[in-house]
Amino acid sequence: MRIVRFASPQGMSFGVLDGDGQVAQIEGHPFGQISFTGARYAQADIRLLSPILPSKVVCVGKNYADHIAEMKGLTGDAPKEPLLFLKPSTSVIGPGDAIRIPAGSTNVHHEVELGVVIGARGARNISPEQVGASIFGYTIGNDVTERDMQQSDGQWTRAKGFDSFCPLGPWIETDLPGVGLDPADLEVTCTVDGEQRQSGRTSSLIFDVPTLISYISRVMTLLPGDVVLTGTPAGVGPIRPGQRVECTIEGLGSLANSVAAADAVSTAGGSR
Amino acid sequence: MRIVRFASPQGMSFGVLDGDGQVAQIEGHPFGQISFTGARYAQADIRLLSPILPSKVVCVGKNYADHIAEMKGLTGDAPKEPLLFLKPSTSVIGPGDAIRIPAGSTNVHHEVELGVVIGARGARNISPEQVGASIFGYTIGNDVTERDMQQSDGQWTRAKGFDSFCPLGPWIETDLPGVGLDPADLEVTCTVDGEQRQSGRTSSLIFDVPTLISYISRVMTLLPGDVVLTGTPAGVGPIRPGQRVECTIEGLGSLANSVAAADAVSTAGGSR
Repeated sequence: MRIVRFASPQGMSFGVLDGDGQVAQIEGHPFGQISFTGARYAQADIRLLSPILPSKVVCVGKNYADHIAEMKGLTGDAPKEPLLFLKPSTSVIGPGDAIRIPAGSTNVHHEVELGVVIGARGARNISPEQVGASIFGYTIGNDVTERDMQQSDGQWTRAKGFDSFCPLGPWIETDLPGVGLDPADLEVTCTVDGEQRQSGRTSSLIFDVPTLISYISRVMTLLPGDVVLTGTPAGVGPIRPGQRVECTIEGLGSLANSVAAADAVSTAGGSR
Repeated sequence: MRIVRFASPQGMSFGVLDGDGQVAQIEGHPFGQISFTGARYAQADIRLLSPILPSKVVCVGKNYADHIAEMKGLTGDAPKEPLLFLKPSTSVIGPGDAIRIPAGSTNVHHEVELGVVIGARGARNISPEQVGASIFGYTIGNDVTERDMQQSDGQWTRAKGFDSFCPLGPWIETDLPGVGLDPADLEVTCTVDGEQRQSGRTSSLIFDVPTLISYISRVMTLLPGDVVLTGTPAGVGPIRPGQRVECTIEGLGSLANSVAAADAVSTAGGSR
């Protein structure tokens, strides 16, 4: 099932994206038993949002050998254990939203990643064997990164934490096996203005999804709706205002975002 | 005004801690105009919780010269700009709750810090001069850190992100000047089992509060209730199960927490 979150003139809702391309609105949230309101929308009449608003986005660095090789001068060798970092919830945007380049920055990179969405049971201190029951589904994430700040700060929080630096979507697939796909072997690609930049398969993950979720759950409780981004394959590179970056994963659709200059209007808590 | 959050037999509420030590319950949240329910509780009849549940805790590393000196072998020289990292919301606990030492860990340290709580206006792209209007008040934070993992991981997320690694409280003071105190010059101390370990003053912060909040707001939007921890003075050191760590800041009371061994029960989303 493809779960989306969307804005209509009536407000925000979750829904199910049908085979005919229409969205069937659901009552409340999509965890647990789903009940439909009966309302259906053509995609042209609604705006897809990030399919979930996670309390946190837990990311994994250096989890594809080819990406470790291309980044070696900056981030070193392969880790012995999963390398964790966080993106704040305020960095999340949806499909079609603009990635905003910070003022003065010239080295913002795309990083396509398989995203795991945690289900209603959450995850705390679980074994790899228990992970399946804690997964709600899969989506696409773009771990947008300011490469110069990543190097100068050492800690990656600022470089990866700007508002708009975490596109998620377009939907959450809750049953990849049901559509004949294995989350452990999905093609992952990223194009910029139609030109292919990244290409890999989730079968190349150094630490696989059960290992990652179990590991993270032994550090911090994963809450329903939290998102784990599993690392990016080789081919990362810069994006500039005016470009369009599109992240695609088999079975999960394409997550396309424009790139814009920063909105630097000074506000004390005004509109985002 | 001293804002607390508490659990009573009737549920969770915010309240105001009066001069007589009683808690006056307030309607809803404490941002904006406060209205009282009329219910009053003796502290013995309620349990204080973390005074806020932040969407994120943004922390600042290496912000006191004496702490930079004691940590130099591990974390290097003073930063040219504020060094940011995040603690997940799941790490937050309240006064009296137990800090839980991860299984196998022998090097978990206390770090007392002045905490800034963001108010209803939030903060985005604001100047240092605008920061005052975005601050709700001040509280105490303990940036609990697993020092061995901090070194081995490089990224500090795991070392500082364990459940229970962010005690906050006991209250939020919304008017330090009203009680004759200046947030820019408060005594900050930490004791373990009554023995003084850390001592400093916020006048020694390398980057002061207006600079920090402005800087962070240009990276990530700070939402109402978000907490910024401003760095720790010298004297950090290990804590062990059975000990009691008490962080004290002038005008903000004392944040006392026991230290316990990890609860390693394996649960797929069970109780925390």
